[in-house]
Amino acid sequence: MAMVNGDASSSYAAASPEPLKRVLVTGGAGYIGSHIVLTLQETRKYKVVSVDNYHNSFPAALTRLNEIAQAALPENATNQEKDSAAVDSHTCDLTNPAQVRAVFEKYGKGGIWGVIHVAAYKSVGESTEVPLTYYLNNVSATVCLLQTMSEFDCVRFVYSSSATVYGTPPIIPIPESTRLKADSPYGKSKIMSETIIQDLCQAEPDRWRAISLRYFNPAGAHPSGLIGEDPRGRPGNLLPLLAHMAVGRVKDPKLRVFGDDYPTPDGTCVRDYLHVMDLAKGHLLALEALAPDSKVFDSCSDPARYKAYNLGKGKGMSVLQIVEAMRNATGYDYKCEVVGRRRGDVPDLTADPALAEAELGFKAPQNLETMCRDLWNWQQKNPDGYGAE
Amino acid sequence: MAMVNGDASSSYAAASPEPLKRVLVTGGAGYIGSHIVLTLQETRKYKVVSVDNYHNSFPAALTRLNEIAQAALPENATNQEKDSAAVDSHTCDLTNPAQVRAVFEKYGKGGIWGVIHVAAYKSVGESTEVPLTYYLNNVSATVCLLQTMSEFDCVRFVYSSSATVYGTPPIIPIPESTRLKADSPYGKSKIMSETIIQDLCQAEPDRWRAISLRYFNPAGAHPSGLIGEDPRGRPGNLLPLLAHMAVGRVKDPKLRVFGDDYPTPDGTCVRDYLHVMDLAKGHLLALEALAPDSKVFDSCSDPARYKAYNLGKGKGMSVLQIVEAMRNATGYDYKCEVVGRRRGDVPDLTADPALAEAELGFKAPQNLETMCRDLWNWQQKNPDGYGAE
Ligand SMILES: NC(=O)c1ccc[n+]([C@@H]2O[C@H](COP(=O)([O-])OP(=O)(O)OC[C@H]3O[C@@H](n4cnc5c(N)ncnc54)[C@H](O)[C@@H]3O)[C@@H](O)[C@H]2O)c1
Ligand SMILES: NC(=O)c1ccc[n+]([C@@H]2O[C@H](COP(=O)([O-])OP(=O)(O)OC[C@H]3O[C@@H](n4cnc5c(N)ncnc54)[C@H](O)[C@@H]3O)[C@@H](O)[C@H]2O)c1
Repeated sequence: MAMVNGDASSSYAAASPEPLKRVLVTGGAGYIGSHIVLTLQETRKYKVVSVDNYHNSFPAALTRLNEIAQAALPENATNQEKDSAAVDSHTCDLTNPAQVRAVFEKYGKGGIWGVIHVAAYKSVGESTEVPLTYYLNNVSATVCLLQTMSEFDCVRFVYSSSATVYGTPPIIPIPESTRLKADSPYGKSKIMSETIIQDLCQAEPDRWRAISLRYFNPAGAHPSGLIGEDPRGRPGNLLPLLAHMAVGRVKDPKLRVFGDDYPTPDGTCVRDYLHVMDLAKGHLLALEALAPDSKVFDSCSDPARYKAYNLGKGKGMSVLQIVEAMRNATGYDYKCEVVGRRRGDVPDLTADPALAEAELGFKAPQNLETMCRDLWNWQQKNPDGYGAE
Repeated sequence: MAMVNGDASSSYAAASPEPLKRVLVTGGAGYIGSHIVLTLQETRKYKVVSVDNYHNSFPAALTRLNEIAQAALPENATNQEKDSAAVDSHTCDLTNPAQVRAVFEKYGKGGIWGVIHVAAYKSVGESTEVPLTYYLNNVSATVCLLQTMSEFDCVRFVYSSSATVYGTPPIIPIPESTRLKADSPYGKSKIMSETIIQDLCQAEPDRWRAISLRYFNPAGAHPSGLIGEDPRGRPGNLLPLLAHMAVGRVKDPKLRVFGDDYPTPDGTCVRDYLHVMDLAKGHLLALEALAPDSKVFDSCSDPARYKAYNLGKGKGMSVLQIVEAMRNATGYDYKCEVVGRRRGDVPDLTADPALAEAELGFKAPQNLETMCRDLWNWQQKNPDGYGAE
């Protein structure tokens, strides 16, 4: 059933009766973005376009993604199938309107079915030091992207938000209805972007559909070990730091535990870790929920087709539990030192994931052991990350 | 005491022993901006630079401002004095970073003492229809302006905010400590900009100083009648509409009063009108409060030198009172028709102006009669606004 691609808006794979939907992933070379790209490719329903400025990532990630995708094709795959499976990647800075425009122009009006907007700066601490840089990259760039999308009749949007929009949450586990109140410019930039997206959906309810996904703590890597998290310098997040320690990349390998007197079972902070592949699948579900026949917006109180969902397991894990799990995965004997609480740390950030489960069918089944195993697999195979290439 | 201007960072007027401080006013050709420019010029302490893209204004306003300034000079004024009194005006779109940069480049590092950022789109209703346009013009442009300022070591900022940041306020009169909660994208864009400015002051407390001024309802015009409010199309605001009616510019001159069953003395909505010249003087006080010896930031709870002030009279006026005052000023016999309440209207928006009075020394002494008289004077002298030129 070979089909000829005569439609500017989508590519066709000979093996698939459905036209491929072209989906743009911003930040496609980053940690989460690369796993989303892979997940989209695996479905063989999407033709993936990535834009990234490689500010915090390497083009090597996309090369790897293409290797994985090509390897997954049947032996007798046609050139067209091979082509469809490859990521169209663009070096593009989202704070540069002309560059964003150029990408959309390449595919023309209606040429991109939807956008998953992952690219952003993500360090809470850094954002308090250079707030304008964060507002420019996380808010102004989102406005520019949405305007360009609108111009090119691309009106389906999935947005990478964060649990940090809840600040210090009044209830645990945290439902989506919790008031938004972030403490850092980073968190505020996520709230502002969500607000802007929602206002847009309210202004054009017959046109726009959008979903914000509030991530809790993504961890682990694709089981192939070909892609994974590759932070520059000393990792700011616990799991990548533990992996760097075990692989010998950290100078003074003593783990500082910030506070053990929190009102949590073992006194250390509790976070809701979920496997990055489970998280990535959540994006697939969100994308599907933007399709015309989707029911997720039926429950909206106004005509706007906008929703926000938590993506988490709904299970809290303490710092000490994480260290223990990494000890088991790596065999490395971590030395911990408890130091004082860190300003801005919240005792417990555990999601109530019921809404995403009920409306999107989202689940995060993989456990901490698997996250640690996959993280360690990636780290062992790439002790120096992509940078070594 | 003639002085030669050998310093790129400021101009000197021969008559004044103090170097003029160069102040950039964005939106300098607009209604409020033009009155601020005039007020700055009158002090003879500032050299005014205006940037505007004339989206909602006319260059003619700046020509008039220069006429007023030149007329105010002593007869024997030197060429240098005449030069200092003239506005340096730039046609510049604040959403275009290169254009903003070009203006700052002209004056060099440290060449601009401070910025009064007035330019914005301001229609609540329109903002619900084209939210992205509002977020781009009111938020992204502010981020870009602040970044450019920072680069050019210009770190004093006065921001035009609005009473709309209070949404439906829980207490009347409204103190600055009221939680911010706007309903429209316009109002949210003001909250976002305030937030960004505050975060910047928090990040660089030894560098930045900023004041947000939350305007209530500016009205009237400069008593010369040479500058004033010149809305395009049918005015959205009550007073300009009444002036247009009286001057015969409105097709169907019947005033629709939106609701007379509000919990207010006469049932119609109450607003806090202040004379635009009083409002403009508030900017002068705010600018002075950014000087090194100012005390206004002493009361800040953190090191950040950021403050927000209400600019209002603290006296509410109902729709019917306004109509009556305009009837007295113009002699025009307004026909009113009470129609249903308008969505989004708040019964009462009256400022608590105590903080601005205590800390800035701000007062809005001019009464409603004067506002109406000056508005009518402007409208009679310019029945077709600047457009007729
Ligand atoms: N990792 C987490 O723990 C976590 C938690 C909650 C939310 N998030 C959000 O998820 C998203 C992805 O996070 P991540 O961990 O994959 O981070 P990452 O830094 O690995 O990925 C972000 C990618 O975006 C790119 N990028 C940044 N600015 C860009 C710009 N102006 N133009 C083009 N590309 C740009 C970076 O180069 C990078 O490849 C972010 O929006 C982040 O805020 C992450
Ligand atoms: N007028 C009111 O009742 C009122 C009340 C509260 C707050 N404000 C705020 O006061 C400020 C001024 O209001 P106004 O009544 O003088 O409005 P206005 O429209 O008369 O003035 C705004 C000026 O900014 C200019 N401008 C807009 N976007 C620009 C851009 N991207 N680049 C360069 N110039 C641009 C316009 O051309 C105009 O000259 C606005 O920030 C408004 O939100 C006004």
